[in-house]
Parts: sequence; structure tokens; C-alpha cells
Amino acid sequence: MIRIIGFDADDTLWRNEELFELAHERFRALLARYHPPAEVDRVLYATEMRNLPLYGYGVKGFNLSCVEAAIALSEGRIAARELEEILATGREMLAHPVELLPGVASMVPALTRDYRLLLITKGDLHHQERKVAASGLAGHFQGIEILSEKDVPTYERVLRRHGVSLDEFVMVGNSLKSDILPVLALGGAGVHVPYHLTWQHEHVEEAPAPPARFRRIGSLAELPAVLPHL
Amino acid sequence: MIRIIGFDADDTLWRNEELFELAHERFRALLARYHPPAEVDRVLYATEMRNLPLYGYGVKGFNLSCVEAAIALSEGRIAARELEEILATGREMLAHPVELLPGVASMVPALTRDYRLLLITKGDLHHQERKVAASGLAGHFQGIEILSEKDVPTYERVLRRHGVSLDEFVMVGNSLKSDILPVLALGGAGVHVPYHLTWQHEHVEEAPAPPARFRRIGSLAELPAVLPHL
Repeated sequence: MIRIIGFDADDTLWRNEELFELAHERFRALLARYHPPAEVDRVLYATEMRNLPLYGYGVKGFNLSCVEAAIALSEGRIAARELEEILATGREMLAHPVELLPGVASMVPALTRDYRLLLITKGDLHHQERKVAASGLAGHFQGIEILSEKDVPTYERVLRRHGVSLDEFVMVGNSLKSDILPVLALGGAGVHVPYHLTWQHEHVEEAPAPPARFRRIGSLAELPAVLPHL
Repeated sequence: MIRIIGFDADDTLWRNEELFELAHERFRALLARYHPPAEVDRVLYATEMRNLPLYGYGVKGFNLSCVEAAIALSEGRIAARELEEILATGREMLAHPVELLPGVASMVPALTRDYRLLLITKGDLHHQERKVAASGLAGHFQGIEILSEKDVPTYERVLRRHGVSLDEFVMVGNSLKSDILPVLALGGAGVHVPYHLTWQHEHVEEAPAPPARFRRIGSLAELPAVLPHL
């Protein structure tokens, strides 16, 4: 019986991927006179993946990779003022207000009547803390965990720290790779709420999930109804 | 009587500020044909401070501010290839091996015989985690806390989480502002180990510390001798 719900944050409780999508569009436009969009996307993604071990997740590393990829794609011909536009987009992403997804503002407080809630997110510590504070939801969570990675060892560590037993835990999120599969592997439950946009890096082949402790729902509004069946 | 020691990490257990110093030197050299060193430093620091609420602490934010300041200082005339040099310096800083300060490798394990140790550091989550792992010291700490800021509320939260009573706690670090003053304000003890380099932002006027629970030592080697007197 579920007693503790872990919530992912970006693209589960509030919008996030749209901002990256917008940054990609601007980036393609800026580099359009050098390369077609597909090549721009390919080089940017390769740059991001090469830098991921050094930069980790988050807007700042993405923004640095954009500047680097723009210089490479233009073979050094891009103007400094154009690179400044990339920096400005990064600052805009970081300053952007938090937009809760529909229903979140009422559902999260309502769930605290029957469940303990944890917020379990990955990314940049400073930015995630600012978003949690801006969301107005922080007070409803018994614990807020900002991780550099969401995998089996990090979930184990977090759940141990909070004294959470896996048979009473469900993780709710939009990423099969980061929110669902590691928790199922540990023996917990998972509710997948796909978002209409997914970062390429978070894509996984559809996993054969144990039928009993996994559900996919179309929107977070369906969550309360599935919780008793996990 | 002290039972728990909190250690700062950067410039307390391992070298850090030298890497920023080197990055500053390269930055001054790159901008030398536009402005004298003092003006270059002034604009870079102003850029860093303006961006701090968005970027937080750490190498990635610093690196982004360097690119922005270089474009501003050169009025957009700097070449993309020169900006790529700034990016390369940032990646070098992140990839740099962790160099423990003298005596740390033997002192930290030795202290665990009589004290519980906590590592309490601020900055970029991903980079700090990588440095903690690379230091080889992680196993000696009962808790590792990576914070976005080190002030009175964050120390209170961390010490509560670890069940630490302030009369048995001492914080050891190189920054009066981040390591010592907030802990003294809470009623804990502080041992200041100045480092030969201090980032401008960490400078504070010398504080009139309560005499009983504050010591300044010349090097970490003196720490075991002062602990019984705090």
C-alpha cells in the first residue's frame, strides 16, 4: 500500500522542456546560414553529450555547449554579438517564471492528507532550488532532494535517508529513464506521466515493466485514482 | 566538548582558488589589447555579481560570465576563436585533478577516531560531487552536504538533519564569511584556516568573534591541538 509519493519536478509538476525547445529554435535560426537544421541539431547534441561528464545537467552547461557548438558550426566565423544572443537566451531560461502544469496547484496539497510527499529532481542545484521556491509547493513536501543523477544508487541513498520502504513508495514522473525504471528495478512502484516533449537524452526503448507496480497515465489528474492499485 | 567537525572543502581540504586565479590571468591577457588589467578585472567581477542570483556559485557560471564580459569589454570585436579559448579554460578547470592540501590525506582519517566528520561545501552540485569522489576522502565523512549557499538558515537545516547539537560542533574552513561567521552566530565553534588566496566575494571585514569558541590557525596541521579548547 502506497504511503509515500516521490514527484519529479521538471515537466512533471511544471513546464521545462518548452524553454529548451525555444532555445533550440533560436539556435537553429542563428546558425541557419552555415548549416541546415538537422546538422545544427546533430552537432549541438554531440557537444552536449561530450560535455555532460564535465558539466552535468542543467541550463548553464547547455548554454556553454551552445556557444561552443556555434563556434564549431560556423568555423569561428560567428560574431561575438551573436554569441551574446546565446548567452542572453541562457539567462532568460534561468530567469523564466515557474509555470505549474494544470491541476498541480490543487492536487499536491490534497495528496498530503493521505500521503507523505518527496520532491526528487535532478539538475543544477541553484536553479532547481530557485524553481522549488518559486513554485510555492515546497511546504507540501517532507523532503526535497536535488540530485546530480537519478539512477538506482541515488534512489537507494535517498530512500534510505528518508526511511522509506520500497513497498510503500511510488515515483511519479515524465521520464521512464530517470523516474520510473530505476525505481521499478529497486522494487518500488512507478507512475509514468508522459510529457509532450522529451529531451533526446531521456529517451529509452519501451521497457517491459512489471505489470503490477507500473501505470502510465495521460495526465496528473488521473494519479489519485491509480494510487490505491499499486 | 567538540564531537563533530564540519569541514569546508575548496581551499580547506584541496586547492581551488589557484584555478580561478589562472583563469583570471588568461582572461586579462586575452583582453589586454582592449583594456588595462584593472578595468578587465572590474568588469568581470561586476558581470559575475550581476549574474550570481541566476547562476549561483561554481565554474560554469564563472565561465559564462567570462564570455559575456569579454564580449562587453571588446565591444563585440573579440573573435569567436578567442571566446573558444575561454570555454576551453572552463572545461580545463572542471577536469582538473583534485589536489589535497598538505597533511589532509592523513589528518582526515586520523580525526575519525575521536570525531564524527561532515563535509559541508557550497557550489555546483555536479562538480562538487566529482571532486569529493576524486579526493578519496568521501568514506571518512558521515555526511556530505553540497549547498547552494552557506548562511545561517542552511547551517541550521544541515545540523538539524544530522542531529548535531551546536555546543559539540565546530566548522573548519578558509572563509570567515561562509564557514565561520554563520556558525558562530548559531552558537557553534569555528576554526579559521586562511588560504593564501581569497575570492573577492568572500572577503569580509574582520569580525569580533566571541573569544571562547573561535580560533585562527596557520595551517590545518594545528587543528587537532586546538579542538579540545573549543
